[in-house]
Amino acid sequence: MAKPTLSRGMRDFTPLQTAGRNYIFDVIKAAFRKYGFEQIETPAIEELSVLTEKYGEEGDRLLFRILDSGNFLESITDEQLQSRNTRAVSAGIASKGLRYDLTVPLARYVVMNRNELTFPFKRFHIDKVWRADRPQRGRYREFYQCDADIIGSESLLYDAECVLLLDEVLSALRLPAYTIKLNNRKILSGLAEEGGFSDKLIAFTVAIDKLDKIGEEGVVRELGNNGFSETQIHKMQSLFRLQGSNVEKIEKLRSLFPTSETGQKGVEELSSVLDYIGLEPLKGGQISLDFSLARGLDYYTGTIYEVTLDTVQMGSIASGGRYNDLTASFGVKDMPGVGLSFGAERLYDVLAELNLLPEIKTTQVSVLIANMDKSTENQSFGLLRKLHAAGIAAEMYPTPSKMDKQFKYAEKKGIPYMLIASAEEAASEKYQLKSLGSKSQELMSISEIINSLKTNG
Amino acid sequence: MAKPTLSRGMRDFTPLQTAGRNYIFDVIKAAFRKYGFEQIETPAIEELSVLTEKYGEEGDRLLFRILDSGNFLESITDEQLQSRNTRAVSAGIASKGLRYDLTVPLARYVVMNRNELTFPFKRFHIDKVWRADRPQRGRYREFYQCDADIIGSESLLYDAECVLLLDEVLSALRLPAYTIKLNNRKILSGLAEEGGFSDKLIAFTVAIDKLDKIGEEGVVRELGNNGFSETQIHKMQSLFRLQGSNVEKIEKLRSLFPTSETGQKGVEELSSVLDYIGLEPLKGGQISLDFSLARGLDYYTGTIYEVTLDTVQMGSIASGGRYNDLTASFGVKDMPGVGLSFGAERLYDVLAELNLLPEIKTTQVSVLIANMDKSTENQSFGLLRKLHAAGIAAEMYPTPSKMDKQFKYAEKKGIPYMLIASAEEAASEKYQLKSLGSKSQELMSISEIINSLKTNG
Repeated sequence: MAKPTLSRGMRDFTPLQTAGRNYIFDVIKAAFRKYGFEQIETPAIEELSVLTEKYGEEGDRLLFRILDSGNFLESITDEQLQSRNTRAVSAGIASKGLRYDLTVPLARYVVMNRNELTFPFKRFHIDKVWRADRPQRGRYREFYQCDADIIGSESLLYDAECVLLLDEVLSALRLPAYTIKLNNRKILSGLAEEGGFSDKLIAFTVAIDKLDKIGEEGVVRELGNNGFSETQIHKMQSLFRLQGSNVEKIEKLRSLFPTSETGQKGVEELSSVLDYIGLEPLKGGQISLDFSLARGLDYYTGTIYEVTLDTVQMGSIASGGRYNDLTASFGVKDMPGVGLSFGAERLYDVLAELNLLPEIKTTQVSVLIANMDKSTENQSFGLLRKLHAAGIAAEMYPTPSKMDKQFKYAEKKGIPYMLIASAEEAASEKYQLKSLGSKSQELMSISEIINSLKTNG
Repeated sequence: MAKPTLSRGMRDFTPLQTAGRNYIFDVIKAAFRKYGFEQIETPAIEELSVLTEKYGEEGDRLLFRILDSGNFLESITDEQLQSRNTRAVSAGIASKGLRYDLTVPLARYVVMNRNELTFPFKRFHIDKVWRADRPQRGRYREFYQCDADIIGSESLLYDAECVLLLDEVLSALRLPAYTIKLNNRKILSGLAEEGGFSDKLIAFTVAIDKLDKIGEEGVVRELGNNGFSETQIHKMQSLFRLQGSNVEKIEKLRSLFPTSETGQKGVEELSSVLDYIGLEPLKGGQISLDFSLARGLDYYTGTIYEVTLDTVQMGSIASGGRYNDLTASFGVKDMPGVGLSFGAERLYDVLAELNLLPEIKTTQVSVLIANMDKSTENQSFGLLRKLHAAGIAAEMYPTPSKMDKQFKYAEKKGIPYMLIASAEEAASEKYQLKSLGSKSQELMSISEIINSLKTNG
């Protein structure tokens, strides 16, 4: 009999890990609700026609595809089989897949329900997504995304709200120094227009996206190799090297776009977002304009942001931005949106590393009823029912056993009290309530025990 | 551009539906925790070697299988391809699948973590499972199971606890009349021993499992067609027809097993479970011994139970039982357990039908800040920050718009108050707080507004 294993890149979560993750989800949910986002759910399984061609070629490759039921080879021709054309066969035998993120399902949801929704539609969604990626440290094939998006408004007020929501969650998690990097895609497009390399904008953003990894020198080399001229590279450098406060940077920025309307629009948008936020400091972190911030995904069209920790090397722990054409790929135009996403796995890792997970108990049980012997067992079980009826979380040890063993069980589970009903005392309806911490014990009636546990439990 | 669709048997959940389901999950979780169960999570994707041959042939057929990544045809021979042998090809190109329930993943989890776990291990798990079933009314391909199990103890005290936990949850959901049907598999095995048809026990349980659908007459016909003798059928009928209170039924039951030790053991077990529960009535429903209760799954070996509603035709809304060999298929013996499972979809449907879902608000937002005009927008946004900082759930309308439109937005979302900052009044830092219910409004400072919302919100 083979030992069972987890599938590659998959994880179990113990009660302690689950409780820690619940704490994070609860903080995020509370903030999302406070800002007026409503929760929806969509299925894990989507038609591949919904999922494909939304994430680029790499994304399509990383989709988990689900084999059709029944005689799935039916629609495959002999020719296709003989040629062993993986792509054609795959397309013929798998019509469903697991969602890759929560954004494309949101687009589908909005398109299918647009006549019933109240716009602007503020929704949140916290759930698992799947990617057939090569597993490595910190990268899993199944992980949670915690997304909040506002669909149906171009107002930059919402961009500002998203920035504040990032701060709300991260400060509530008591994370120490963090920086919300802020940029606008139009500024990068504007730079390309001014530099005459609009045709190479994607190569440009791909290169600067690597700034953290390969440094400015590396980026300059990569751009050089990709045929960017020295003047163009110099333009980029003058953008990246803007110094000063956010207000000063905005001022300097304007002069960088003498001709590009897109660039000027980007500066205006960025400036508006900062104006909404105003001068009141954030709860925990700080906002830093970072014109080298590019964000990988192609669909962002305006504001983009990303949060990094100042003292922990961890990559971004949250990010997002504005997109103008979320639902265009489903044939519905003019559905702009802005949103953000927290990475639950990274948040958990960093909170654990910094010892910031609150002291979490995996059990709520405040008392374990000892199982003394067969003759009093049913009576003791009656006490369990009384405790439960009084709203007290309680357990009873399942078999008459040595007290040592029962104490150990309570200790391991973190149960603070034991209720011991010895035969003589039980006859007078008095029971020992023993504190496992202080080792003290007291003889009490069940209603006295209930009161005591309600006060101390 | 094709309109996007949901995959067959899949569902989206609107904010209102999600909130209703959250209510049910919260009630179930609170009860599970009160009884000392700790939450775990396991992945949606499992190796097919873990999933297959656990649910019978039908179950294997209903597994969603995931296509291997990369060149998945590699390991398939030309012969297999040409013969179009679906089963062989499937086995060669799909090594992973989606979990079919939460029980087999629990068995895998216990086997892999048995050295770290504290036994008896009381765990709960609430999550989605998937079955490639033909969708129909009330039957979906993706649905939630809410499971609690206790692993590593033979104590019938836990069987009694499970029965009480069923009552705890269903009474907390304020369901009206429900019946917890109770039986023991050993009683059915004992009947087979007494009747000399132990070799046909499965055909027997399959037949009586249909009692609700085809009636006693139908069961008798099916048994007759399967070669059961009249004497055997008569034995069954005398079991099913036992009348009286639960105590009386137990008494009469003993005489039905003059020779079968298994049958006697079943009676003793059932009697013990009833003794633990005692005479104190349940919170909401009642327990009824039902010797025709068989439960489909093969792995039950002792106590079995199932809950039905007295006034709504809905099938079972919760069920479970005791199994002695949960982990045997993974090579680990002596791991007995007992557990129960709530069906979230049926609970939701029945609560909705009976109007028992509490009045659910999809938003927690208590005030919408009106967006009056561009000149006061930033100042109003500052008020939003102040409300959030004071812990008040609030939104601001994204663009200066007609008041009508803004009121409509607040109404549709169920936001009870609007804060209106007109230019003149804003200059004196006083704002109108308008109740959408009573239409009354009052001029107040922001701190007065905060106090008022904290009191009434």
